[in-house]
Amino acid sequence: MKDMRGRDVVITVDEARGKFDAAFRLPELRVERADITDALGRVLADDIVSSVTLPAFARSSMDGYAVSARDTYGATESMPAYLTLSGEVLMGEEAAEPVGKGQAVRLSTGGMLPPGADSVVMYEHAQLLDDGTLEVLRAVSPGENVVQPGDDVREGDTLLTAGHRLRPQDLGALAGIGVTAVAVYSNPVVAIINTGNEIVEASAAPKLGQVRDVNSYNLAGLVEQAGGVPLRLGIFPDEYGAIRDAVVRGLESADIVAITGGSSVGTRDLTSGVIDELGRSSGGEGGVLVHGVSVKPGKPIIIGIVSGKPVFGLPGHPVAVSVSFMLFMRSLIKRLSGEVDPLGIAGIPPVRVVRALMARNYSSAPGREDHLRVSLELADDTLWARPVLGKSGLISTLVWAHGTVVIPLAKLGLSKGEAVEVELFD
Amino acid sequence: MKDMRGRDVVITVDEARGKFDAAFRLPELRVERADITDALGRVLADDIVSSVTLPAFARSSMDGYAVSARDTYGATESMPAYLTLSGEVLMGEEAAEPVGKGQAVRLSTGGMLPPGADSVVMYEHAQLLDDGTLEVLRAVSPGENVVQPGDDVREGDTLLTAGHRLRPQDLGALAGIGVTAVAVYSNPVVAIINTGNEIVEASAAPKLGQVRDVNSYNLAGLVEQAGGVPLRLGIFPDEYGAIRDAVVRGLESADIVAITGGSSVGTRDLTSGVIDELGRSSGGEGGVLVHGVSVKPGKPIIIGIVSGKPVFGLPGHPVAVSVSFMLFMRSLIKRLSGEVDPLGIAGIPPVRVVRALMARNYSSAPGREDHLRVSLELADDTLWARPVLGKSGLISTLVWAHGTVVIPLAKLGLSKGEAVEVELFD
Repeated sequence: MKDMRGRDVVITVDEARGKFDAAFRLPELRVERADITDALGRVLADDIVSSVTLPAFARSSMDGYAVSARDTYGATESMPAYLTLSGEVLMGEEAAEPVGKGQAVRLSTGGMLPPGADSVVMYEHAQLLDDGTLEVLRAVSPGENVVQPGDDVREGDTLLTAGHRLRPQDLGALAGIGVTAVAVYSNPVVAIINTGNEIVEASAAPKLGQVRDVNSYNLAGLVEQAGGVPLRLGIFPDEYGAIRDAVVRGLESADIVAITGGSSVGTRDLTSGVIDELGRSSGGEGGVLVHGVSVKPGKPIIIGIVSGKPVFGLPGHPVAVSVSFMLFMRSLIKRLSGEVDPLGIAGIPPVRVVRALMARNYSSAPGREDHLRVSLELADDTLWARPVLGKSGLISTLVWAHGTVVIPLAKLGLSKGEAVEVELFD
Repeated sequence: MKDMRGRDVVITVDEARGKFDAAFRLPELRVERADITDALGRVLADDIVSSVTLPAFARSSMDGYAVSARDTYGATESMPAYLTLSGEVLMGEEAAEPVGKGQAVRLSTGGMLPPGADSVVMYEHAQLLDDGTLEVLRAVSPGENVVQPGDDVREGDTLLTAGHRLRPQDLGALAGIGVTAVAVYSNPVVAIINTGNEIVEASAAPKLGQVRDVNSYNLAGLVEQAGGVPLRLGIFPDEYGAIRDAVVRGLESADIVAITGGSSVGTRDLTSGVIDELGRSSGGEGGVLVHGVSVKPGKPIIIGIVSGKPVFGLPGHPVAVSVSFMLFMRSLIKRLSGEVDPLGIAGIPPVRVVRALMARNYSSAPGREDHLRVSLELADDTLWARPVLGKSGLISTLVWAHGTVVIPLAKLGLSKGEAVEVELFD
């Protein structure tokens, strides 16, 4: 969008998200099967309904003696009950031999309760007088120290729901109900297109005027960290046809296309032209949705949709790539992974956050949401956040910082000693 | 260690860590090479010293015109300076043609400054009157809008240090200085031994008395999440020789051995006996160091060292496996990965933490550090933490919870409405 003077209209981060969300429709997601040994971090495509009841049999939750509770009524240290030890339940064996009146059977934690027993006397509350006589020093009530069938999971229970990202304990639970492979959503593929006549491969020796590709490696790492699959398509010259062909290839092979690299106005104009042309020709309401967001660094970001797929024109400065990714691409990759916010609770940050005090003053440009990189240091038991300054084109500012402080649009800066929340890099 | 009555002496979590740290020596770590496209999350084994200076040439940080600052002195909107546009610097090309007195050369952000130019007038502060005449509306000072050679990185600078876990932006920085492969520490291997006569494979149909393996899948996921390589050796019967042979195999193939599965006292005694025998026979001060820690769940944990390698006997209950892992194994895997705490700052939690209010009362056993699983829910703009109760043997308690609240040893419980910090599962 242009204003009356022909300049691009810059909007806020929230407005940009709103424009994108209004235009974007989540496509039908691809599904594949994964063995549970290979499913950590994958997102379930189906609800998991248990076909079994757990435990399948009454189990002891203690090491001790299976008894009928009524045989221990009134037992105390001063007036014990005396039972006949009639056998032992071996771990992993069916306890087929019933416990008769006045009898007790030894068993371990997790052991199956024999027929006729309804409770377990802990080892500590009994002593064996001879091979066959058990002195019970404390009464138990029916069900005491026993896990009943179905106490854990019942057949037909939904253990996990579609959209859940699998954690280690979920893999254990799936194994427990005998599910060894699950349907998961395919990880979304992000095509990365690097443009810029000045950009050469990281392995090349740049001539004067040239620089090595930084952004596509940073971006590929960010995509991978968010659960996506980066697909680096290569470095392309700042030519309309080359960029258009690369975007077409990206759309064929990926779920999201990101163009990064060149930092000049010329590159941005080409990118925006390509997205608009392809968006129009693909029908529907495709094209550029956002051209410029009031964020620093990252202002010149372009966001569009072509053939229903998101296409990003990222700023050329390395730090701006990271900020743009975190603001717009990260959550989109999560959505295209099929993930449903595990808590369904807004306001829980997706990254670790620590509180620190500003180590110096920092003044922020008005009218922009400022994403300030900081390094952390501990002094006098206080955590201090020190701005990592330098133009956002510098790669050194990428590596010295431990996290980011977001200064809202309306705030003009931070004072030394002011408390801030630092979002840590992972 | 046993007390006078022959019972195992239970110690605190900190005491257990202290005993282990006093006995354990970090071995020499294995090193391998990784391409930077495959190095996300890997730990650097060497310092990265830049062999290049960046930028290698003076670059413009704006789209505009390269000039000699003195030619713009005093220029204002009402009294502009007039320069001759003598050419254009193309992106990626060496700017060989000098800028003479009274001349200006067009260039884009990132473009190389030509000889004779020392500053850049932004597009917005100049206008082209005809093909050859530039009206400069604002003076620039020498160096304005220019990134000087070495402003970013100088040859010989240490960009990253050994022990640093590589983040996306680090991969970009490495590419920027032409480093496309790095030496990283090999991820530590954790052998997982499942014991218990009652345990069957997740894919098997358990008979009465048997249960499916839950713990080795949960533990493998935890190991993977911490950056280790899980090596599941299989399910072994509760027999001394079988467990000993499995531990020997584990020691041959892994950096850490973890025994999990059986929940009975018998299994624990076998495990502890095996660790003591192998520890003694391996020479040095090997054997069981810790047998029981005052934590709930997870009290019956065994920690030992054999042949310099940590060996864990984990409790049989699934939730206790997770708690034991987080308390003792996670940080050990990080150390064996070669990772140096990126901030060097104690007290920054390794996981996400949110504040919530207790949704109900919870009473905790005295004399134990209690790790309470909670689920989170939002009501009336308040985040509530609700205890997920049930014996720790239940797998359902694994999946319903969103995180853990740690109740210190000395605290007897939590009141409804009390503020707590919830460590979220990732």
